[in-house]
Amino acid sequence: MCRMLLYKGNQPIQLAHLLTKPAHSIINQSFDSRLRLDTRRPINGDGFGVGWYESEPDPELGAAPCIFTSVTPAWNNMNLIRLADKIKSPLVFAHVRASTAGSVSESNCHPWQYGRLMFMHNGNVADFHLIKRKVQESMTDEIFLTVNGNTDSEWAFAVFLSQLKTPRQAEPFCHSVLKEAMLKTIAKLNAWGKEAGITEASMMNFAVTDGVSVVCSRYISSRTLEAASLYFSSGTRFESYKPGHYRMIKADKREDIVVIASEPLTFEKADWLTIPSNTIVVITSKLNVLMYPIVDEYHNPTPTGRAPEQANVAVVQGEGRGDGARDHRHREVVFVEDHRAIPTVPAVDSLRPDKGQSTMSHSESAAMDAPARALASTAPVMVA
Amino acid sequence: MCRMLLYKGNQPIQLAHLLTKPAHSIINQSFDSRLRLDTRRPINGDGFGVGWYESEPDPELGAAPCIFTSVTPAWNNMNLIRLADKIKSPLVFAHVRASTAGSVSESNCHPWQYGRLMFMHNGNVADFHLIKRKVQESMTDEIFLTVNGNTDSEWAFAVFLSQLKTPRQAEPFCHSVLKEAMLKTIAKLNAWGKEAGITEASMMNFAVTDGVSVVCSRYISSRTLEAASLYFSSGTRFESYKPGHYRMIKADKREDIVVIASEPLTFEKADWLTIPSNTIVVITSKLNVLMYPIVDEYHNPTPTGRAPEQANVAVVQGEGRGDGARDHRHREVVFVEDHRAIPTVPAVDSLRPDKGQSTMSHSESAAMDAPARALASTAPVMVA
Amino acid sequence: MCRMLLYKGNQPIQLAHLLTKPAHSIINQSFDSRLRLDTRRPINGDGFGVGWYESEPDPELGAAPCIFTSVTPAWNNMNLIRLADKIKSPLVFAHVRASTAGSVSESNCHPWQYGRLMFMHNGNVADFHLIKRKVQESMTDEIFLTVNGNTDSEWAFAVFLSQLKTPRQAEPFCHSVLKEAMLKTIAKLNAWGKEAGITEASMMNFAVTDGVSVVCSRYISSRTLEAASLYFSSGTRFESYKPGHYRMIKADKREDIVVIASEPLTFEKADWLTIPSNTIVVITSKLNVLMYPIVDEYHNPTPTGRAPEQANVAVVQGEGRGDGARDHRHREVVFVEDHRAIPTVPAVDSLRPDKGQSTMSHSESAAMDAPARALASTAPVMVA
Amino acid sequence: MCRMLLYKGNQPIQLAHLLTKPAHSIINQSFDSRLRLDTRRPINGDGFGVGWYESEPDPELGAAPCIFTSVTPAWNNMNLIRLADKIKSPLVFAHVRASTAGSVSESNCHPWQYGRLMFMHNGNVADFHLIKRKVQESMTDEIFLTVNGNTDSEWAFAVFLSQLKTPRQAEPFCHSVLKEAMLKTIAKLNAWGKEAGITEASMMNFAVTDGVSVVCSRYISSRTLEAASLYFSSGTRFESYKPGHYRMIKADKREDIVVIASEPLTFEKADWLTIPSNTIVVITSKLNVLMYPIVDEYHNPTPTGRAPEQANVAVVQGEGRGDGARDHRHREVVFVEDHRAIPTVPAVDSLRPDKGQSTMSHSESAAMDAPARALASTAPVMVA
Repeated sequence: MCRMLLYKGNQPIQLAHLLTKPAHSIINQSFDSRLRLDTRRPINGDGFGVGWYESEPDPELGAAPCIFTSVTPAWNNMNLIRLADKIKSPLVFAHVRASTAGSVSESNCHPWQYGRLMFMHNGNVADFHLIKRKVQESMTDEIFLTVNGNTDSEWAFAVFLSQLKTPRQAEPFCHSVLKEAMLKTIAKLNAWGKEAGITEASMMNFAVTDGVSVVCSRYISSRTLEAASLYFSSGTRFESYKPGHYRMIKADKREDIVVIASEPLTFEKADWLTIPSNTIVVITSKLNVLMYPIVDEYHNPTPTGRAPEQANVAVVQGEGRGDGARDHRHREVVFVEDHRAIPTVPAVDSLRPDKGQSTMSHSESAAMDAPARALASTAPVMVA
Repeated sequence: MCRMLLYKGNQPIQLAHLLTKPAHSIINQSFDSRLRLDTRRPINGDGFGVGWYESEPDPELGAAPCIFTSVTPAWNNMNLIRLADKIKSPLVFAHVRASTAGSVSESNCHPWQYGRLMFMHNGNVADFHLIKRKVQESMTDEIFLTVNGNTDSEWAFAVFLSQLKTPRQAEPFCHSVLKEAMLKTIAKLNAWGKEAGITEASMMNFAVTDGVSVVCSRYISSRTLEAASLYFSSGTRFESYKPGHYRMIKADKREDIVVIASEPLTFEKADWLTIPSNTIVVITSKLNVLMYPIVDEYHNPTPTGRAPEQANVAVVQGEGRGDGARDHRHREVVFVEDHRAIPTVPAVDSLRPDKGQSTMSHSESAAMDAPARALASTAPVMVA
Repeated sequence: MCRMLLYKGNQPIQLAHLLTKPAHSIINQSFDSRLRLDTRRPINGDGFGVGWYESEPDPELGAAPCIFTSVTPAWNNMNLIRLADKIKSPLVFAHVRASTAGSVSESNCHPWQYGRLMFMHNGNVADFHLIKRKVQESMTDEIFLTVNGNTDSEWAFAVFLSQLKTPRQAEPFCHSVLKEAMLKTIAKLNAWGKEAGITEASMMNFAVTDGVSVVCSRYISSRTLEAASLYFSSGTRFESYKPGHYRMIKADKREDIVVIASEPLTFEKADWLTIPSNTIVVITSKLNVLMYPIVDEYHNPTPTGRAPEQANVAVVQGEGRGDGARDHRHREVVFVEDHRAIPTVPAVDSLRPDKGQSTMSHSESAAMDAPARALASTAPVMVA
Repeated sequence: MCRMLLYKGNQPIQLAHLLTKPAHSIINQSFDSRLRLDTRRPINGDGFGVGWYESEPDPELGAAPCIFTSVTPAWNNMNLIRLADKIKSPLVFAHVRASTAGSVSESNCHPWQYGRLMFMHNGNVADFHLIKRKVQESMTDEIFLTVNGNTDSEWAFAVFLSQLKTPRQAEPFCHSVLKEAMLKTIAKLNAWGKEAGITEASMMNFAVTDGVSVVCSRYISSRTLEAASLYFSSGTRFESYKPGHYRMIKADKREDIVVIASEPLTFEKADWLTIPSNTIVVITSKLNVLMYPIVDEYHNPTPTGRAPEQANVAVVQGEGRGDGARDHRHREVVFVEDHRAIPTVPAVDSLRPDKGQSTMSHSESAAMDAPARALASTAPVMVA
């Protein structure tokens, strides 16, 4: 199981603050992943990738992101360490890989890029080999030939591109266009899987961006299982208070930073909210965050009914290494199961309070239990 | 353009004698390739691979070859240097790659293996992207899913496997079965290309083995152009007479060694004969060598009519680096154009004189000019 | 902290049985290392190396070992997987590295080789940078210049070579010569450390071989701490009873296999004995195993008085991942603290009962408590 | 023999214009190096490095350069291609390596960095192994321990650092301090070599920068041989007029760009001047360029008396590959021998005409022959 992270901010951030300096950064996660679902492969050491956009648009450099990938482990990659120290960006995707499908090669490292779009995946398309031909047949030659590696994830990106009319367009996309393409991607992969008789659930935590807005899913093709973990944090600054330890500062009403990650980057429980399973998240160009339940046959309006995953249970039981901090740590991430924290919205509108409108449909808020509603009403600013 | 080499002998050879020690070994060829056709990419530095079979069958180890590949240049690969010093094998394939199609990754390094079969390719399937879908549609899921990389060459291997009834069989194949599959592979790729309107010629120097016999083609889908170079040598011993300098010793009537290579490994002109364009070569389990013209629409019974390639001309003109040895060297390889040296045979039988039979069809030998015929008649032992 | 493994047998073993197939092979240890002392770096993913000697001496190939190293993680290295499947050897060293000193590069991967000698190290020379100059000044130019990397371990090998009169000799060494050189190496490193005022303990589990005999230390420059773990097993066959699960078979009186490893390769408690801290082990050409306490200022005749390491405690407490097998597993390795299992001998002689002599000095056996003595007397055959 | 390149401009340049896009960029030079002196190793494929400074100082990012190195060949390194497309910098060092000393590892890739300083070397310190101990003994522990690799070049950097009082200072250095340290470095290496009886000439083309000014030498420890080639170009813009083809535009009196490289990046003869052997070049923070002869025992006031190198002759003779452009190309670089083109100055002052002063000492200009003086007087603006 892989790990992924995305950052979007009003200000560029030094990549090191996301990648190399936090004690529980995505790179440290790569060898200490407490929330992992698949315990057979305990390390995300099969490749690494980070992609970022310019701090200021430069016509000479174009709108595409820059991507750095490596098949050697991230934690000792001198190039990564040096680049992370020197590069700042307002929009960053990062991914560490544990190969579930596809061999270990740079072609198989996330994220991938096409025109101005960048894409990554945490999870796996179940029994992908059984639908690989269908997937390939569904797309134009141009997109078919753009795939260099042999992972389910890169083919999922190709499916995504195929849902766009002009995937190579120079201008930014409307975020609702990206969202619709993402939903169609999930629906298509589900349909092919069903057609092929695949019963295993696919884990489709996808993230895509055009350098302006971001669309991200936490999804599993199951009505009863939890999707792979995905957390959300927002604030004014992402700040280190002692070496390796960070927290999200909420200095004022403004939300200048949104981070979404497979695992919390900080040990501050209050910084992180679980994105509910089978939700699609949109971060707009203005940093508004919109969440929508993905209403298909796997939609479960009572998400607490989903079976907690084995790994999550392990967390609660105090799994970890025997390093003094253990007891302390797992208490901090016990909130893993708190998937009601962020209200999901059926509409396109923002949750920003200054928009002066309720973005909760009646039925959705009814589905939330009391503490969750309290959270939603007192802390809507949590979703920037 | 890549370089390839294959060795089959009655005795195992230390890999270093083929790979690292000869001054003009395949690895030195990787940065000093005088016969290259494609002058835009002067280095074969995009990956390397060597595959070999056990000296003595060991049921515990199985019949598959061992393969070592690397994306770092062969000439400085310490692992390769150490393995070549320590491993002996009676059947070796080696390949250095200059990426023409497919990215640089270990998945894209030749040779590939499937069951007991091993395959490599020097050349390119013209405009492969235009027929990639057809190729994929033509095969079973099992073989379709076995492809890990994204090169025309690996897909050509998949086409080859698809021509065999039982590609994963445990026992050795009949060499004529491998030969027929090779001919069908070439025919299929040609047919798809024609269907797609591709007019550029494909260069299909393929080599395949099951660990017992070897089948190798020198082929171009053109009636007038030369195929990528391919040389043949045989003898009793492959011997170093001074550091870096080797020659093929023909101690007696027995032929214990056959080497086929994109470029001669030695500077001894007499050691090497050009395999004619559009020929298929079979090395049997007993080291008999059989050559057949590939008689299709690109068959040219007067091979001297083929246009000499630019690079070959360059050789004659003294191309090379300004190192003292230059003048000396290119005189030694001036025989590049001598493509009449090895008689081709239409029949399955061996050329071994002790078989007491002519393996020349009348029409074929009529097509050869006098010196070639002289060679064929006086030196049939050249083809072991 | 790294992991190491050495195998010496009367028969060659397929490397896969040591490296890739056991569920708790050295490669799986590389991401699941339960006995690790240094919990800050939980993965041995910074490089891998394996070295082996020919099954049968071949003058053409020489007496040096073949070494394969890689800086990409061992668990996904296709070359390693393929080589391990195809290579057999009667004498194998393997090492996975977590960089404690020295950057990640192939030059820094164990084992190293010099002439017919091969060397590896598990541990670290404390504050090596403070004695690096002294170390370098202590040796001849020839040996000084042979060091390619920048690890304490490779310099320790250079110190070792400097203790030999003819480190490049063609013939095998007398094992007592290797043992004396090892003891001097430890003594010299200790002396330089003391001179430099270093108080941290060095962990010097070294292993060296000339392809014939093996000398291995479990050592820490402390009177009260445990050295890095080191286990011993011997038997007639090392056999897989179900996929991934191995056991040591003791079919008869003969001992045909000796394995020494940082961690047990099997889950059978009875297969593995702890080598006591500050012991030197010799495996002779005839597979006799001799153990000697290293009697210097850090010698502790009551080894049970050594402080159990934190990591060992963790084992007892059930540290591990929540993968079902956990409970089962840590019960099996609870014997970590049983460092009295193998009697140590002050003399050069073998423990083989057929030698008809006691190899226990009086004082040593007096220092052992009752159960240990019982073990020593009833099962001396454990040390082959 | 390696290749190196340095760029300093008033404006940041997209790295691709220096590294990947020019047909004769340093990367293309890596496999097509017509001016190479050492013809035994025709490829610079043993590693690559590029270092650059921020376009605008950012306190958060610090004053150190960012460095990207790789041991896979530069010409197919996707990370390099993507980074070069996206990164702009006003001060860039780049280097491709053909290993002459030191193994192939990232630790051995140029450039190296220490504090705000960056250093690279083209050439070799003759018989370095004979003086390695002396070199190491000459420096403080801090600098001794900073060396990670095993090349003569990195040790030369350590010698350079040892000539500075405060090598880790936060502020920029005075360029004359860097120049003096460079001269002392050369003098020290010469002295140790003489002491060790080394007679082979060392080739010491060094470049160092603190992110503000640059000091670069073209030097050989011989009175009669040419140093490794080094060219100089300056102008207002470095511009592509057709794909792969660049020229230096001199739009006005201002000089906004200085490039120094082992080989010309463009095919425009007039763009490039040869830096004379045994010269030290300083590029000041304001882009003034100062040249000084290195007056030591190897100083040759009549540089035309130096023996043309074999490789240079080869150029004149039309060495190269038979790729159509050959005839055209070597005519353009025939000016290789024109080492009188840039006047050297003994004083620290700039040659800028607007400084209204002569920077030629009387004795130096007397040493120049007529055409050189003419050039110096008519075209002082050539040295920006």
